[in-house]
Amino acid sequence: MKVRILVSLKDSVLDPQGQTVKNALHTLGYDSIKDVRQGKVFEIELEGISEEDAERVVPEISDKVLANPIIEKFSWQILEKD
Amino acid sequence: MKVRILVSLKDSVLDPQGQTVKNALHTLGYDSIKDVRQGKVFEIELEGISEEDAERVVPEISDKVLANPIIEKFSWQILEKD
Repeated sequence: MKVRILVSLKDSVLDPQGQTVKNALHTLGYDSIKDVRQGKVFEIELEGISEEDAERVVPEISDKVLANPIIEKFSWQILEKD
Repeated sequence: MKVRILVSLKDSVLDPQGQTVKNALHTLGYDSIKDVRQGKVFEIELEGISEEDAERVVPEISDKVLANPIIEKFSWQILEKD
């Protein structure tokens, strides 16, 4: 099974990386860019696990390892089933 | 308009960050994790731009600024239309 997890800063948290990218794009003349938020994406291949177990394991590892729940949020989806 | 751009290493490129995450998960006992690939996600708010223009601008900035086309690939989707 393949899953995709998106981790991004909570909306209330400043995103200096995203701001830097936005400024770079403005410098290049892309004035239609109003805001940029940058985050991380993880594509994870799971083996020998049921969909039910994945529903438990994926949020668990997102919360424990992939994201910092104080300042980050995550969402996930199944890309490929077994 | 809001778009999401996913940037990840090409499949042929080694991903030491992803490997480190995989090893950390194995250490914690998550043995069902077979592979981890890590990438970047950008959520960009565009203003005063048609969908047609976005179809041109988004791949352009992805190729020029957000991704390194030598080692990275990108995909994108529209999250919210105006």
